Amino acid sequence: MTDALAVRAAALTLFADRGYRATTMADIGAALGMRGPSLYRHVRSKQELLSEIMIETMHTLIADQKAAVEASDDVVVQLRRLVEAHVRFHARNREHAFVGNREIDSLENPARQLVLDLRRNYERGLRAVIERGRDADRFDVADPRLASYAILDMGIGVAAWFRSDGPRSVEQVAYTYADQAVRMVAGRG
Amino acid sequence: MTDALAVRAAALTLFADRGYRATTMADIGAALGMRGPSLYRHVRSKQELLSEIMIETMHTLIADQKAAVEASDDVVVQLRRLVEAHVRFHARNREHAFVGNREIDSLENPARQLVLDLRRNYERGLRAVIERGRDADRFDVADPRLASYAILDMGIGVAAWFRSDGPRSVEQVAYTYADQAVRMVAGRG
Repeated sequence: MTDALAVRAAALTLFADRGYRATTMADIGAALGMRGPSLYRHVRSKQELLSEIMIETMHTLIADQKAAVEASDDVVVQLRRLVEAHVRFHARNREHAFVGNREIDSLENPARQLVLDLRRNYERGLRAVIERGRDADRFDVADPRLASYAILDMGIGVAAWFRSDGPRSVEQVAYTYADQAVRMVAGRG
Repeated sequence: MTDALAVRAAALTLFADRGYRATTMADIGAALGMRGPSLYRHVRSKQELLSEIMIETMHTLIADQKAAVEASDDVVVQLRRLVEAHVRFHARNREHAFVGNREIDSLENPARQLVLDLRRNYERGLRAVIERGRDADRFDVADPRLASYAILDMGIGVAAWFRSDGPRSVEQVAYTYADQAVRMVAGRG
């Protein structure tokens, strides 16, 4: 790991553990055994670290979503893969998920607005699949936006309870959540 | 509002806004125009305020769940009412939801363990309805625990996006989420 990546990883752990406001640059340096001057050679500010972490999270999620949608024309397959990717990310990157969900108001503009725009794009990507499925009579959904919010939030919730040494693997949770999402929008017909 | 309730309300807003660690008793006093001595007449510590807020949240949720389950023998009606109550709470008590979800690790024992036990009871209450529905062949659920986690998390998520001046009322969201939860467990047959 380069020093810059090590700084970001230490910041991520501290932000997830005690929150952005309660973490100081000195804490981040102490976690790495780095003094101020060598720390500031790698990063300008705590704010820069937070914005890098949150923007990277959204870029990863959006890239995974794009791959999930592009590999098939079948909306059910698209929805399954999209939910599986979403759940996998949140089970495997719990610290990113904690920081992303808690610290949006700690972010300053323009980073804050960028992250909000990326989240909007990500939600729209899921909603577009739901709407295409509805238009093709594959799905029966009264309110695609609420279906999309519910599916995203149930996946985000995985970050809070998932344990890598628990009784279910990441893949088992991902597949079950994909089934649950398909049932939610597929109707009972 | 009594002074003790005003102190708790001010603490809730500050904990939700900037987090427990970043809030001081002096901040809470300043929000109320109270000096230290009169503040400490109403509350012993910041920790006491946090535990009161988090325990009250769980007692409210559990009482609502009990009422939802007891008023009918039909598992579908029970599930609907339970999800509606869960969503209503999270749409109407966004600050309680933020603090409850963020600050469990800021809580000291025995309050921390009590809140975790109350959460476990609450999750079990929902899971019991899902399992009864499955045993009565009303529901078709492979993993009741994951269905229960998903339903709770999608409702918790409402606290993050709901706006009282938004396009959907609390009741509209509650009913749509109840439909979504029923579809998720009812299967496609």
